[in-house]
Amino acid sequence: MTDRVCFLMHVRTDRLAEYTAAHEAVWPEMQQALRETGWHNYSLFVRPDDGLVVGYLETDDFDAALAGMDAHEVNDRWQAAMAPFFPEADASRPDQRMQRLTEYFHLA
Amino acid sequence: MTDRVCFLMHVRTDRLAEYTAAHEAVWPEMQQALRETGWHNYSLFVRPDDGLVVGYLETDDFDAALAGMDAHEVNDRWQAAMAPFFPEADASRPDQRMQRLTEYFHLA
Repeated sequence: MTDRVCFLMHVRTDRLAEYTAAHEAVWPEMQQALRETGWHNYSLFVRPDDGLVVGYLETDDFDAALAGMDAHEVNDRWQAAMAPFFPEADASRPDQRMQRLTEYFHLA
Repeated sequence: MTDRVCFLMHVRTDRLAEYTAAHEAVWPEMQQALRETGWHNYSLFVRPDDGLVVGYLETDDFDAALAGMDAHEVNDRWQAAMAPFFPEADASRPDQRMQRLTEYFHLA
């Protein structure tokens, strides 16, 4: 069964334009890695006021999808490239700051 | 083309259990109205800490989907039933409190 995943992150509002521009040109090898590790129908949304990011994706196994990307060298490079767009106070890698929410309703 | 929509709301944390329980038994006529007015692959997620709700759906036209529900009598009854689960300070109807976010990335 497909797992529907929703997670939150926060990006720096003072660098939001650069951050969203980078996502208009996500490296083909990064996109390929996401596909291969089971990230499907994956969207990112932002609230510009405060940089709240919402991620939504469908996957057979989110833990496996995370572990799969964690093992990909291209993901190290992508996360390093994105790091400047996240608050410095948080020293963890951007993809390790995801806060997953709980689904309580679904209508096909 | 399908429009992917993400919106935010806030529910009362002190009544969260009742609110999510109600969504395990959404009235069939409410589900039918949503389908008929173009709400597809519609999920609701919550962050229990503070009652932040994230909605995700796919639709051909979100304005038409909203207007369609607005014209449905069952939606009046559903929104009235949900109203106690939202902060009283905000007197508007729950479905009129949606804050839509901006999509900046999508991977099919």
